[in-house]
Amino acid sequence: MSTTALIVGAGSGLSASLARLFAAEGMTVALASRHTDKLGMLSGEIKAVSFAADASKPSEVERLFHDVEQKLGAPKVVVYNPSWRIRGSLVELDPAEVAKTLEITAYGGFLVAQAAAKRMLKLGEGAIFFTGASASVKGYAYSAPFAMGKFALRGLAQSIARELAPQNIHVAHFIIDGSIRSATRLESPDKPDSYLDPDAIAQTYLNILRQPRSAWTWEIELRPWVEPF
Amino acid sequence: MSTTALIVGAGSGLSASLARLFAAEGMTVALASRHTDKLGMLSGEIKAVSFAADASKPSEVERLFHDVEQKLGAPKVVVYNPSWRIRGSLVELDPAEVAKTLEITAYGGFLVAQAAAKRMLKLGEGAIFFTGASASVKGYAYSAPFAMGKFALRGLAQSIARELAPQNIHVAHFIIDGSIRSATRLESPDKPDSYLDPDAIAQTYLNILRQPRSAWTWEIELRPWVEPF
Amino acid sequence: MSTTALIVGAGSGLSASLARLFAAEGMTVALASRHTDKLGMLSGEIKAVSFAADASKPSEVERLFHDVEQKLGAPKVVVYNPSWRIRGSLVELDPAEVAKTLEITAYGGFLVAQAAAKRMLKLGEGAIFFTGASASVKGYAYSAPFAMGKFALRGLAQSIARELAPQNIHVAHFIIDGSIRSATRLESPDKPDSYLDPDAIAQTYLNILRQPRSAWTWEIELRPWVEPF
Amino acid sequence: MSTTALIVGAGSGLSASLARLFAAEGMTVALASRHTDKLGMLSGEIKAVSFAADASKPSEVERLFHDVEQKLGAPKVVVYNPSWRIRGSLVELDPAEVAKTLEITAYGGFLVAQAAAKRMLKLGEGAIFFTGASASVKGYAYSAPFAMGKFALRGLAQSIARELAPQNIHVAHFIIDGSIRSATRLESPDKPDSYLDPDAIAQTYLNILRQPRSAWTWEIELRPWVEPF
Repeated sequence: MSTTALIVGAGSGLSASLARLFAAEGMTVALASRHTDKLGMLSGEIKAVSFAADASKPSEVERLFHDVEQKLGAPKVVVYNPSWRIRGSLVELDPAEVAKTLEITAYGGFLVAQAAAKRMLKLGEGAIFFTGASASVKGYAYSAPFAMGKFALRGLAQSIARELAPQNIHVAHFIIDGSIRSATRLESPDKPDSYLDPDAIAQTYLNILRQPRSAWTWEIELRPWVEPF
Repeated sequence: MSTTALIVGAGSGLSASLARLFAAEGMTVALASRHTDKLGMLSGEIKAVSFAADASKPSEVERLFHDVEQKLGAPKVVVYNPSWRIRGSLVELDPAEVAKTLEITAYGGFLVAQAAAKRMLKLGEGAIFFTGASASVKGYAYSAPFAMGKFALRGLAQSIARELAPQNIHVAHFIIDGSIRSATRLESPDKPDSYLDPDAIAQTYLNILRQPRSAWTWEIELRPWVEPF
Repeated sequence: MSTTALIVGAGSGLSASLARLFAAEGMTVALASRHTDKLGMLSGEIKAVSFAADASKPSEVERLFHDVEQKLGAPKVVVYNPSWRIRGSLVELDPAEVAKTLEITAYGGFLVAQAAAKRMLKLGEGAIFFTGASASVKGYAYSAPFAMGKFALRGLAQSIARELAPQNIHVAHFIIDGSIRSATRLESPDKPDSYLDPDAIAQTYLNILRQPRSAWTWEIELRPWVEPF
Repeated sequence: MSTTALIVGAGSGLSASLARLFAAEGMTVALASRHTDKLGMLSGEIKAVSFAADASKPSEVERLFHDVEQKLGAPKVVVYNPSWRIRGSLVELDPAEVAKTLEITAYGGFLVAQAAAKRMLKLGEGAIFFTGASASVKGYAYSAPFAMGKFALRGLAQSIARELAPQNIHVAHFIIDGSIRSATRLESPDKPDSYLDPDAIAQTYLNILRQPRSAWTWEIELRPWVEPF
């Protein structure tokens, strides 16, 4: 029976590349998003099943995993992508937006990881991957909320890697350090490959997923060759 | 006129040591806590003024700073201490408790820093200090929520240090790596000084506060001599 | 024409796995070691060419690269493996052994990277990979010299990644956090996969080597699922 | 009897500020440098004793400590300052200069720490402080040798802190992130306090030295308020 992979925070970009690659590898792909209308084309292309869910709400995450399990089988691979980002000077930030940033970027990661672990511990195996950013390890000025959210997600990923790895669940944290190429964000021709190709990122996720457990990666960073760091 | 120092998350332990030391240095001390009944003795001892406030609520933080400003003058020194800690395996954690951990440990830090910065930017100077923990830089197993909260607080502190330092506001993050000695937590006689003396920690906070701006510390760690790390 | 890959610090374990994998991928493999007698069997097995060189001696490194270039073509892939490790309390360490640790573990890495970069810059491409250890990011007690050497190697790798990546040379640093399985170091049957399989590590090196330059990794860590960290 | 403090790598700048402050605190100050001729004025001013020694030579370090012990008593406070810095692209660096950078910046630190620890373990107490730099934690492009040396020194400091702290020897590492003000390096009037005041740095060294052992710092960073990081 095919492995079920659940991608939370599905849309275009990295999540679409992951979905296509996982499908090409023979996995059954479940896509979760707050707004599933944008998932139609992708779902059709790779025969994935879409689920509407707000990953920052406990009840919706529980229902999501219940539904995925019912329809496709409990996922052995779960990727958590969602983030919310606001920028601004400290004194101008809207507290409600800061709370939202923490909820979507970090708290939702906890809810999804918890629901995933409940099932994977029964299965005796699994993989939970988190998508981080430059802000996961560096708090940039005028970007405090995103730093808070991504630092928190990294703390979560590190803590549960320590707990779950010895129970045969592979937890990994990916630091995406740079801009991802997209239809609306094209690099200038004189700076080739200066944006991350989402297919290339997805390939690295797959490679980490395929690692035998004697040599697991917890953290890896990815950036374009010309990206300062 | 005396400098006003506001200690958020006041009670016993480190916050009491800070209050006493700041008062001894001639500062006017404001103590904020959800429960001010426990602050009576300390307030009397050092002539500090207590304020009841839940630092994770925007309206209460605004009122707190308004009241402190009215009564004692806008604080030039603000210390954020509160944290909430729950432990447990990932699958057994209560999502509501995890949300609470993030709110108290990290979101309240944002609210307090924002309210503090609004006033300090007008004053043209100030200091905002955050109390971190071992968990600020290491996500321990079975302690995911605390890691999330303390990582997030560190991300906040780093981001706003980059923004505010050039505006003459000193932001610092203290990593307290070990247990703090208290009346209910006494070290064994054969392991002297194995718990952090809160007065010693407070002295280091004061030393960092006294640094001229040509040589400011953003982060410092403190641990007992016998603490493994 | 086949890509030449040079593995410095060749012997058994990881370097042999890398040699076999690179050969299987169609690369021409050069093996460098102070003592080439131990390389006979491996060289025969994969048709690799062995070169005797002490990588901590400038003249020997120059000669090594000259000879590899003459015989096999300038290497586009170079892996630096050598390290020397002594343990002991600070006061008992032999200064000459500490100097040797720095020379083999770090200074040789510089010499090899410099010789490699000279050629790769002309070729317009290349990859220089460094093998690190837990000690690359954590200085363990009673192991100061190894920490010094591995920290230094990481500093080198980070500095030249910043310099060379925009010149199309991929520099990566691998943190091997755990013991590598070998004929003389077998894990106990009740703790399966508790030592790193060198073939699994080599596969990750190859995956990093295959990354398109829009999404390069500078640092990745690898450890067994049951390894505490 | 007065505490003997030995400052290795003495000259102008930070080391002179340390010497003056330690003397003002009642310590007997020993100054070590390869070239003692430049120490005359400082020695006279604070009644310090100068010693000629190349800290990267085992025999000279042994003689230095022997002489200091004979004349002034075994030092309970030792600061290691020396560093050597060359810059340049990887391919243009002179290997001999890289070796020298490692010797002075890191290997000398080991030799001095070892000689210091031998005496402090007998005394039952002591402090060994290392002066680091931005390059201790970030490998900048075109500065590989300095990164190697300073990373290595940090690895040393971390390893021996773990070993020696439980033996009542306080090991600390100071990350000086910015330029230090000097007679030949004056900041522009419109950017006040943009260079580190060496007296301010020295005060922080003293504060760390004065910490009770229940709350010791291993690492602290210092930078001007306007320094980007």
